[in-house]
Amino acid sequence: MKKILILNGPNLNLQGTRNVEIYGTTTFEQYTAMLAERFATRVEFDYFQSNVEGELINAIHASVGKYDGIVFNAGGYTHTSVALRDAIAAVSTPVVEVHISSILSREEFRHKSMIAPVAKGSIMGFGLDSYRLGVEALLE
Amino acid sequence: MKKILILNGPNLNLQGTRNVEIYGTTTFEQYTAMLAERFATRVEFDYFQSNVEGELINAIHASVGKYDGIVFNAGGYTHTSVALRDAIAAVSTPVVEVHISSILSREEFRHKSMIAPVAKGSIMGFGLDSYRLGVEALLE
Amino acid sequence: MKKILILNGPNLNLQGTRNVEIYGTTTFEQYTAMLAERFATRVEFDYFQSNVEGELINAIHASVGKYDGIVFNAGGYTHTSVALRDAIAAVSTPVVEVHISSILSREEFRHKSMIAPVAKGSIMGFGLDSYRLGVEALLE
Amino acid sequence: MKKILILNGPNLNLQGTRNVEIYGTTTFEQYTAMLAERFATRVEFDYFQSNVEGELINAIHASVGKYDGIVFNAGGYTHTSVALRDAIAAVSTPVVEVHISSILSREEFRHKSMIAPVAKGSIMGFGLDSYRLGVEALLE
Amino acid sequence: MKKILILNGPNLNLQGTRNVEIYGTTTFEQYTAMLAERFATRVEFDYFQSNVEGELINAIHASVGKYDGIVFNAGGYTHTSVALRDAIAAVSTPVVEVHISSILSREEFRHKSMIAPVAKGSIMGFGLDSYRLGVEALLE
Amino acid sequence: MKKILILNGPNLNLQGTRNVEIYGTTTFEQYTAMLAERFATRVEFDYFQSNVEGELINAIHASVGKYDGIVFNAGGYTHTSVALRDAIAAVSTPVVEVHISSILSREEFRHKSMIAPVAKGSIMGFGLDSYRLGVEALLE
Amino acid sequence: MKKILILNGPNLNLQGTRNVEIYGTTTFEQYTAMLAERFATRVEFDYFQSNVEGELINAIHASVGKYDGIVFNAGGYTHTSVALRDAIAAVSTPVVEVHISSILSREEFRHKSMIAPVAKGSIMGFGLDSYRLGVEALLE
Amino acid sequence: MKKILILNGPNLNLQGTRNVEIYGTTTFEQYTAMLAERFATRVEFDYFQSNVEGELINAIHASVGKYDGIVFNAGGYTHTSVALRDAIAAVSTPVVEVHISSILSREEFRHKSMIAPVAKGSIMGFGLDSYRLGVEALLE
Amino acid sequence: MKKILILNGPNLNLQGTRNVEIYGTTTFEQYTAMLAERFATRVEFDYFQSNVEGELINAIHASVGKYDGIVFNAGGYTHTSVALRDAIAAVSTPVVEVHISSILSREEFRHKSMIAPVAKGSIMGFGLDSYRLGVEALLE
Amino acid sequence: MKKILILNGPNLNLQGTRNVEIYGTTTFEQYTAMLAERFATRVEFDYFQSNVEGELINAIHASVGKYDGIVFNAGGYTHTSVALRDAIAAVSTPVVEVHISSILSREEFRHKSMIAPVAKGSIMGFGLDSYRLGVEALLE
Amino acid sequence: MKKILILNGPNLNLQGTRNVEIYGTTTFEQYTAMLAERFATRVEFDYFQSNVEGELINAIHASVGKYDGIVFNAGGYTHTSVALRDAIAAVSTPVVEVHISSILSREEFRHKSMIAPVAKGSIMGFGLDSYRLGVEALLE
Amino acid sequence: MKKILILNGPNLNLQGTRNVEIYGTTTFEQYTAMLAERFATRVEFDYFQSNVEGELINAIHASVGKYDGIVFNAGGYTHTSVALRDAIAAVSTPVVEVHISSILSREEFRHKSMIAPVAKGSIMGFGLDSYRLGVEALLE
Repeated sequence: MKKILILNGPNLNLQGTRNVEIYGTTTFEQYTAMLAERFATRVEFDYFQSNVEGELINAIHASVGKYDGIVFNAGGYTHTSVALRDAIAAVSTPVVEVHISSILSREEFRHKSMIAPVAKGSIMGFGLDSYRLGVEALLE
Repeated sequence: MKKILILNGPNLNLQGTRNVEIYGTTTFEQYTAMLAERFATRVEFDYFQSNVEGELINAIHASVGKYDGIVFNAGGYTHTSVALRDAIAAVSTPVVEVHISSILSREEFRHKSMIAPVAKGSIMGFGLDSYRLGVEALLE
Repeated sequence: MKKILILNGPNLNLQGTRNVEIYGTTTFEQYTAMLAERFATRVEFDYFQSNVEGELINAIHASVGKYDGIVFNAGGYTHTSVALRDAIAAVSTPVVEVHISSILSREEFRHKSMIAPVAKGSIMGFGLDSYRLGVEALLE
Repeated sequence: MKKILILNGPNLNLQGTRNVEIYGTTTFEQYTAMLAERFATRVEFDYFQSNVEGELINAIHASVGKYDGIVFNAGGYTHTSVALRDAIAAVSTPVVEVHISSILSREEFRHKSMIAPVAKGSIMGFGLDSYRLGVEALLE
Repeated sequence: MKKILILNGPNLNLQGTRNVEIYGTTTFEQYTAMLAERFATRVEFDYFQSNVEGELINAIHASVGKYDGIVFNAGGYTHTSVALRDAIAAVSTPVVEVHISSILSREEFRHKSMIAPVAKGSIMGFGLDSYRLGVEALLE
Repeated sequence: MKKILILNGPNLNLQGTRNVEIYGTTTFEQYTAMLAERFATRVEFDYFQSNVEGELINAIHASVGKYDGIVFNAGGYTHTSVALRDAIAAVSTPVVEVHISSILSREEFRHKSMIAPVAKGSIMGFGLDSYRLGVEALLE
Repeated sequence: MKKILILNGPNLNLQGTRNVEIYGTTTFEQYTAMLAERFATRVEFDYFQSNVEGELINAIHASVGKYDGIVFNAGGYTHTSVALRDAIAAVSTPVVEVHISSILSREEFRHKSMIAPVAKGSIMGFGLDSYRLGVEALLE
Repeated sequence: MKKILILNGPNLNLQGTRNVEIYGTTTFEQYTAMLAERFATRVEFDYFQSNVEGELINAIHASVGKYDGIVFNAGGYTHTSVALRDAIAAVSTPVVEVHISSILSREEFRHKSMIAPVAKGSIMGFGLDSYRLGVEALLE
Repeated sequence: MKKILILNGPNLNLQGTRNVEIYGTTTFEQYTAMLAERFATRVEFDYFQSNVEGELINAIHASVGKYDGIVFNAGGYTHTSVALRDAIAAVSTPVVEVHISSILSREEFRHKSMIAPVAKGSIMGFGLDSYRLGVEALLE
Repeated sequence: MKKILILNGPNLNLQGTRNVEIYGTTTFEQYTAMLAERFATRVEFDYFQSNVEGELINAIHASVGKYDGIVFNAGGYTHTSVALRDAIAAVSTPVVEVHISSILSREEFRHKSMIAPVAKGSIMGFGLDSYRLGVEALLE
Repeated sequence: MKKILILNGPNLNLQGTRNVEIYGTTTFEQYTAMLAERFATRVEFDYFQSNVEGELINAIHASVGKYDGIVFNAGGYTHTSVALRDAIAAVSTPVVEVHISSILSREEFRHKSMIAPVAKGSIMGFGLDSYRLGVEALLE
Repeated sequence: MKKILILNGPNLNLQGTRNVEIYGTTTFEQYTAMLAERFATRVEFDYFQSNVEGELINAIHASVGKYDGIVFNAGGYTHTSVALRDAIAAVSTPVVEVHISSILSREEFRHKSMIAPVAKGSIMGFGLDSYRLGVEALLE
């Protein structure tokens, strides 16, 4: 059994209630339940979301020795946060960057990722399925 | 009676005690009291200030169904925060962006607003009176 | 009684007849009549519109000693006109910059304002109501 | 019979007398006579030239319901005029952008056209024949 | 009788089957037939399309002494190909650049043309009619 | 049974023989055999590689009605090819962009993807496993 | 006797009444009188000022054969006007560019001159004396 | 006896446990003990570290009248935080900026400091000794 | 005896027939004959030219174990081709970059070389003699 | 009698022998003799030229109390030398910047002047006569 | 006893006589005497200043084996000199970069340091005390 | 017998003693001896090195009529010196630019050469052998 943290950044607590025509009505409560079921024999999941940049840093620091990997969607902090980048670079836990939509096909200010250069890899644009693919990537 | 949240970002808790030659000695405690008096028959005000970006996001999330509008000065986060922009875009509460001074006539790094494209409108440069005009804008 | 000039730049003579689904069918003739009624006891209004940059400069020069303030929408000249900026900086009449839509949420070439750094303040994005707020700002 | 306005911006009144080794000695008086003759059975032409940006805007406004199209060379205003762009976008008259030389093969500051995104199409580089091709484009 | 080559770059083989709501269902097979009919007494046409940049260069090289002109739509190579630019500059055959849509009103990466500075002239934005205008330009 | 095309751009024919300390000694012949085995009951694979940009465009055109999806690594054409972008946008076949390494953590000229905005999604940085994840993404 | 036109652009009609602590109280009426006196035996002066870009272009066109030179301060149009640049390039009258202050030591948007590349030479920073030096330059 | 606050931003809580080959195994607990001993007769130290931008702002606000100076390493917030800059500018406590490594010799996105323009001075590149030098600077 | 490949990119097949006043009338057929004669006792030459980027990549791949070096003029692909750069980096054959003219003294879009960072060295500006110097460089 | 230093930067010792078709055959030895004669009753001249940046700085330092002004052509150092700018700013001697040709109409790297912001004024484009005008400017 | 060279670049010979309201009236003769006294038992100082970039390079070359460190203020050469950067990188003597004011809070062209990436560390903004701190840094 | 000057810029006097693992231990004294021997019957060499930009300019000026060519490595001045560029452009002596390493594959600030546009040609990246190739180029 592997232990994986699903880590969500700002505004992702609203998933399922905003822009439902795009993202659907599935909340992360429901989605992580589906993930847990799908990977029931292989992965034990924890879920943490925060709108506070520093609490995300704390969660990354605390992951060492506790998780085999993090599936991380840094939301709006993806594009500007040097501090989150440094946090990932400072820990040994492998981090997979995921995004619901493709950051490279939205506004120009979203085209840059501070996370990608320090992540194990990046997956974007597949809707919530990006998280499942992130888990798959950590398992191989 | 409308319900309006005056929402202030980083360093605005110091209003009235710093750069008094520019901004005067009126604190937000005093100023919101004056606002409450001026709009006594029309608006009920709440006031919230935080230096923590994530707490401002929380406040915007929590506004749905509780306020008819937000008069928001994002302070230094105005120019860089994708996360605050996403928060405003995700809620139905109308947000009016205000600034005490004109961000377009200060240092170049203050010329850009992440808030403006998702706000109902922007008011800047009228000192504390920008907030009163923000309330006027929400009432029309 | 204060005396205020509503000054409109290029293409604003077409208001009410173009993009009516966005801007409505109110013309400036109708709108300034409504303004005059609303502020009947406090403000006397003049209205001037020109598509010629130099005539707008002339109007700003001529305002000295004649108006207590100008509510100015420079239209397409907002983004490029050094000459209008210099004109406002050269006169003592307070000028409030207004825009019907938010220039910061449209095409990139509209993000820059030559007017803002020399204006008393800027109001944008509230539709025609931006003008009323501009008048409010001059009255305080 | 279609009605087409040939609209010329700044300095084009000098055609035929300046840089004659490049542009030839044909003036617009002569050239529009040739155009009138060539399209005698199909098009009725008007010609207007002004060095004043605002007068060109006025001409575009006045074209509605009067012309079936405009063949427009904005000259030096092509590269900077947001106001002309807005004027064309605001009227229903189709506008074909023409240039005597190719703006994309001259100095860098001429590489940008504010007119192209709101024009029906653009024709450049064929000398005075660009105007004839512009008329052809409006007739199809 | 003049001899003109219609030369099409990448993806233009799909014309008539993609984005039919924009470009219509006319294929180039049909369109060049119409061109041939329209200019039957004046022009003999050849048609060549390739998705391979180097084959377009080969076609331009081979045009010398064989064609009186080329109507060339370089498609996606327009914006980046130094090699196509050099090919046109190296041959004596006059080349008219055409585009179905206006490259100056689409995404920013399409605003630059490597072809324009070495072409006889450029025509863009008139749909398939841009090709007919290109032929007209070569005939004068 | 789904039908999926593994499509590789320039230099990827060398996989397994270059930079083996980074990429390992697995060739695509071996890797696609492993993929075929792993997805034996669900996917039938074809493999095509070319160093010629236009042949990749041809392959994308030819995929319509023949494949349920393409896992595409455009190699060095990723960063500059408008023509490949147009090809993907023109066909209905879903395309998943993959990269062996993370293009966002290498040289600056590799940070831009012309493919991402028209792809279903993007996966990068997981070594050859990026291809497997691409297949997983197409199957959901 | 030489004939020289002193040509002033936007806002220069206010000289002597604005920013008097910087520019002094000398108006151009007074200053050109002093110039006339100083060069009484050598130069006959005309003076023209306009806030309208197109009228300045007209004045430059009209100078041919009438003046031996123009001392031209284009004011705020200096930095953006392609049309004025083209006007000067189109006439044979020598034009000396002058500025009261040094445009290279003010705001960045004033650092560029569209006039300089087509002027005989440029003189800036000497206050009103820049005009006298401009006349000296034309006389040599 | 002076009172000095050692203030550390994001990820600096990991000092001594990450990149030990570069930064050594000294933690800030150990290092501040050494500082306290070295300056025993002259300085009383407090230490505060947070990963939350807003808590650092709070700490700077709270320093007024309580500390004679702050030795501040803003970590990853150095390069982007307008809010921290505003906080330092708003208080009277002198702030010395320190960095363990030289921000000017690392990745380009670390070359800019929002802190430097409002700090008393900056010291960078001397490892942990940068903090000691920061104390020395505050004592003179 | 060393074995060296002279590899030429797009448009270089026209050498001797275009811009003869600059490059002379020597074709590569003649020039490589002269090279063969000059280095008769030391070098055996092969010559390959293609206008197709992918065929140049193929030629570079095929060089391994077959040539002691390549003298490569990538022509117009020099400035944009990531794929050619990757091809050179992927093979062990030493590649010397040559250009007939100095790319650094022509148009700005030619100032960048994707080839130089992966080549053994670069020689430019000596006309056809750049190739001879490239051979000299490979021999030392 | 005023005392003025003519100070020339790099390569200006070659005046009269290079590019004689542009600059004529007058050397500075001859030209300063003409200046001395022309201003015989009003100015005493010294002349100094150096190709060494530091010696020009020395000359500016040494000017204090010895000259009433400097006419300075910094040559190629104009565009890059922070040190020369600082030298001029540090001394009380008024410095007039002159250039033989107009730096704003040559290559882009010559468009910037480090000297202009600290000079009394700038004169460029009048050939050697720029120096005479510089003297005139210092005398007023 | 350590041996340290205080090395000063252009214009620093004027310290004590220019901008005395900012920098005070202490000259480097006086300041280095104070330094010598303060570090009497630990450091032997040499002082060298030159306005000539190449002489500073010579001094850095000559330092090898003669000094235990250099406290270097490169003045205006800080921002542009690749040659000084290369000189420091080429010698084994540790170099500490110092600046009297903070280069990051002055004009934008002073924000870049060529020295910092090759220096042991950088200290700026503490007035002349920056030099004392530089010595402290070399002693640890 | 031809006469050639080997001219070296800043820091090249250290060749053979710095970065010996890259550049080897051959000094220019040794290397020029080897050159002299190799070209004994064809070339007479002089060698000059200086760290002072102005002395390099002097050497280039002095070369006229004395040398048949210069092999010039401008070192760190390559990337910034307008003055050296002007010096080369002003003399008739042919100058070949050489660099030991490839400036296009090092830090970005070394990618630009001020020398290349005025040199006969450029050779870079072949170690000291670049100088030998430079001599070869001058002899043809």
